[in-house]
Amino acid sequence: MKLATLDNGTRDGKLVVVSEDLTRCCAADNIAPTLQAALDDWDTIAPRLELLATDVEHQAVPCERFHESEALSPLPRAYQWADGSAYINHVELVRKARDAEVPESFYHDPLMYQGGSDGFLAPREDIPLGDTAWGCDMEGEVACITGDLPMGASKEEAAGAIKLLMLVNDVSLRGLIPGELAKGFGFFQSKPASAFSPVAVTPDELGDAWKDNLIHLPLMVDYNGEPFGRAEVGEDATFDLADLVAHVAKTRSVGAGSIIGSGTISNKGEDGGPGKPVSEGGRGYSCIAEIRMIETIYDGEAKTRFMVPGDTVRVEMRDKDNHSIFGAIEQKVVQA
Amino acid sequence: MKLATLDNGTRDGKLVVVSEDLTRCCAADNIAPTLQAALDDWDTIAPRLELLATDVEHQAVPCERFHESEALSPLPRAYQWADGSAYINHVELVRKARDAEVPESFYHDPLMYQGGSDGFLAPREDIPLGDTAWGCDMEGEVACITGDLPMGASKEEAAGAIKLLMLVNDVSLRGLIPGELAKGFGFFQSKPASAFSPVAVTPDELGDAWKDNLIHLPLMVDYNGEPFGRAEVGEDATFDLADLVAHVAKTRSVGAGSIIGSGTISNKGEDGGPGKPVSEGGRGYSCIAEIRMIETIYDGEAKTRFMVPGDTVRVEMRDKDNHSIFGAIEQKVVQA
Repeated sequence: MKLATLDNGTRDGKLVVVSEDLTRCCAADNIAPTLQAALDDWDTIAPRLELLATDVEHQAVPCERFHESEALSPLPRAYQWADGSAYINHVELVRKARDAEVPESFYHDPLMYQGGSDGFLAPREDIPLGDTAWGCDMEGEVACITGDLPMGASKEEAAGAIKLLMLVNDVSLRGLIPGELAKGFGFFQSKPASAFSPVAVTPDELGDAWKDNLIHLPLMVDYNGEPFGRAEVGEDATFDLADLVAHVAKTRSVGAGSIIGSGTISNKGEDGGPGKPVSEGGRGYSCIAEIRMIETIYDGEAKTRFMVPGDTVRVEMRDKDNHSIFGAIEQKVVQA
Repeated sequence: MKLATLDNGTRDGKLVVVSEDLTRCCAADNIAPTLQAALDDWDTIAPRLELLATDVEHQAVPCERFHESEALSPLPRAYQWADGSAYINHVELVRKARDAEVPESFYHDPLMYQGGSDGFLAPREDIPLGDTAWGCDMEGEVACITGDLPMGASKEEAAGAIKLLMLVNDVSLRGLIPGELAKGFGFFQSKPASAFSPVAVTPDELGDAWKDNLIHLPLMVDYNGEPFGRAEVGEDATFDLADLVAHVAKTRSVGAGSIIGSGTISNKGEDGGPGKPVSEGGRGYSCIAEIRMIETIYDGEAKTRFMVPGDTVRVEMRDKDNHSIFGAIEQKVVQA
């Protein structure tokens, strides 16, 4: 099933069930007022939402037109947003760009940071930027929303706790990262509010494309209207989503409605080296930092600047029949 | 006014107004079902809660006995928990203990990490520990709960957004910190669930002891029944709570119900050097890492071990008449 949260003027919005083709939706607030409320009692609520989803498909209930532009992030605010960095190629490139080494531990112990979750941008909301020197970048990712999970949960339990999947634009302020990481406490100001896709879907909606706790489809990132990234989410992942969820649960229990991200999707090139831009037949990049590093490698200097007011980014994923699965994140950077 | 959240079997508990002397409480769920709901609409709800608090003081409404042991953390889960490190003495000692330098930027730019907020321990709940090698430590702190704040808010706006104050035991796993910080993304598994005081209070409840966005009273930390820390919260703070809240708001808006912590309270000794234990007439320590470092300085090695199952910690604050302000955090470490 596919779920979305419509803006009804409240902080947490109104839960709706969306048709598979994303054209129609039906209010689900008689079942659960908000997505968080549904997640808080998922075992009871999910089957009722599934029944409604079936009725929506059969047009057995009155529906409204679903407008992606009216959707908030599925969880407009959340109790947890923890973002991994499962794609070693991204980590290698970004670390090279800031002259930092990839720690050996990365290959068996996931990198993860705790992100702010008190307010997410809507999928079509502008990205407010205070200063272009902050180096505003997009990061195209996938993420899951979990149910409850006990401390010390196994990978299998973690896999079972994955209730919903989404896309993310994890906005990053590259100019603030080196200073913050030098302080030793990780990202804080360098990770402002992220935006999630208009629709969250249960893993079964992906059919064969959901396998081994990974989505086996390309993530489509467009920058200023041009294809920028077409990285295969199912390739080059050192860790899958269940590994990341289990990492969260190692020393503490995990509360329902926790959002766990994959980190920037990134593939190696065909020769095992850095991948080529989409315009040159490659799979491109899910963030600007990568292309800047590759420009540095090939041309001696980075030419692509970070985002400034007016720049737009679009993140989407389509199934094999070219149907949008999650709807599109589509954001413009504006001066705050 | 003083507010608490009683365990009623739900994830967010039931909001009650507590008498100043912490002996009685009155259900406030007809005004706002939960503390988060009150914070979401604070300007409307707070005056109504204040009226109820007046009635509670005058015994003009039926009250129940307030039992601290029945309270959850005031926000049993929150949309944000960001913890600063405002006390340079703590940072200097802990960094010495892990052979790390204090970055110069610390003196003008607050250290802060994003903590997990999807589930806090209740103030009397056991601390589950998976492995004693994780080096379980307490950290006695104070924290504020904020209202909404726009991105780029000034320090004055940040000060105005401080709605409630609490105490915290920020549980830390010292054995996991060096490895995590070496990975560069900051704390994650090394910061399991924290616990907050049974009661959250509006700043006016502190009278003269609330000045310059700091609480001017000692934080009482007892370890296994003995006085362990009596650090003055109003002394040796490089940053006050408004500085820390403004730091959060630099690149993003801040949502109502965000919890911002002070970091471990820590005073220098009278001679400007490391402080003495309480048993030797000093103000002691708000965490074990500090006494271990001081033992290393004076005796060549740390003698005090980190917490193991059976150890207890108590964090409280009393006013000048020796009345408990927030109730006591009282926790025992247990094998998970």
